[in-house]
Amino acid sequence: MKWCRYQVGDKISYGTIEGDTVTAVEGSPFDSYTETSNSQPLSSVKLLAPVIPATFYAAGINFKEHVTEMAHKRGEEPQFPPAADVGYRAVNAIIADGEDIIVPNDATELVQYEGELVVVFGKKCRKVSEKDALDYVLGYTIGNDVSERTWQRGDRTMWRAKNTDTFKPMGPWIVTDLEPDDLNVKIRLNERLVGDYDMSGAIFSVRHYISRMSQYLTLYPGDVLWMGTDGAPENMKDGDICEVEITDIGTLTNKIVWEK
Amino acid sequence: MKWCRYQVGDKISYGTIEGDTVTAVEGSPFDSYTETSNSQPLSSVKLLAPVIPATFYAAGINFKEHVTEMAHKRGEEPQFPPAADVGYRAVNAIIADGEDIIVPNDATELVQYEGELVVVFGKKCRKVSEKDALDYVLGYTIGNDVSERTWQRGDRTMWRAKNTDTFKPMGPWIVTDLEPDDLNVKIRLNERLVGDYDMSGAIFSVRHYISRMSQYLTLYPGDVLWMGTDGAPENMKDGDICEVEITDIGTLTNKIVWEK
Repeated sequence: MKWCRYQVGDKISYGTIEGDTVTAVEGSPFDSYTETSNSQPLSSVKLLAPVIPATFYAAGINFKEHVTEMAHKRGEEPQFPPAADVGYRAVNAIIADGEDIIVPNDATELVQYEGELVVVFGKKCRKVSEKDALDYVLGYTIGNDVSERTWQRGDRTMWRAKNTDTFKPMGPWIVTDLEPDDLNVKIRLNERLVGDYDMSGAIFSVRHYISRMSQYLTLYPGDVLWMGTDGAPENMKDGDICEVEITDIGTLTNKIVWEK
Repeated sequence: MKWCRYQVGDKISYGTIEGDTVTAVEGSPFDSYTETSNSQPLSSVKLLAPVIPATFYAAGINFKEHVTEMAHKRGEEPQFPPAADVGYRAVNAIIADGEDIIVPNDATELVQYEGELVVVFGKKCRKVSEKDALDYVLGYTIGNDVSERTWQRGDRTMWRAKNTDTFKPMGPWIVTDLEPDDLNVKIRLNERLVGDYDMSGAIFSVRHYISRMSQYLTLYPGDVLWMGTDGAPENMKDGDICEVEITDIGTLTNKIVWEK
């Protein structure tokens, strides 16, 4: 099943997608909903980010090659995370599939993509086991954890490095009933393959993250967990098109626009 | 003017407080509202946290004595922040005035208060000057940035150290038209004064934080910014009562309950 959030005129709805058709629901997949008879071609609506989370979690560092390559770029030895300690991103930065990533004019050239699997929670959960963890997931979407590396290294926090407005593209929709460990992520910059990794290579799995987080905190419907990226990202320039494709979900596509 | 959010039966409303009376509004102070004739004694309603922010900002390190004392406890030299780089907290952890701070049974004894001024935004803002920054503030409330120091030092992020469920008491209400630099913060543990500082001693002012943040990101109505704490906090034990009092706002009071 494929869920989206979209806008027609001033009206914002959640909807289900079958083939090239979107059908509106009243309500949302995060509480209760009823189907409507209001269907239209997917191409005739504006897709929005599929959810605005109450809390926006991000694994951050969760793949060995990414840790190793980023450490080498800084001239340091890689340090793998000893535990699934989650981080945070901010909703001000979220944009939808097809919207532009606007880079502030005082950014350095080190503005990079990080293509990631996004877990979207569907039910409230607290203190769940790894075995039961996926029961609380509505589905999966795609994220691009855009990062300005100079700010990431120099600032005390990652506030502007990762949470400048437009730096968190997410979408295009949410797909249910996937096995996260089986998914593959491909990243393309101007149609050139620049990243290709399997979620099975994650240091900590989706099930492990959910179970560990839920020992201390309550996860709510609509919360999201971005799972981190692998590989060594390249810089993006003004006008570049970045695509993140994940098996059985689709492709998230955004253009880089450097502020004049 | 004093704004609160409260519950009677199943109904949650925003309201204004005058003396000992709360009057409900339709809508909220963050978009549009109309006054109602529905008034009742403040003591007859359950106060909720006065806002659930879309993004929950926290200055973190923003007072010299706090930086110095915390560094000395770790056997390190103090490092003052060179810039107003903001951090994040998470809404799962928010509780209201009078609710219990529940400490997980695997926490160490280093569970400490941090009494803080909270800025509540009332208007959307982007790229504002320090001079105009306060025009976007609805008002001010009180926060207790409860922190488990062992997790804060040992984990890769502050997820459970600062965002375990119930670790972010906020309230009791929002007061408008204050000058933030003139406010004083007093912290009491079981009625003993354990912290007393002036906001004029902050390394970076409210105006400076808002202006700097807004150069890179959009602040939205209902977003909150916790301003950091001064001094060297003490540990809190099971059954302790922690109070944070700020000039012209009031007192935020919460009990510590250690999970069995």
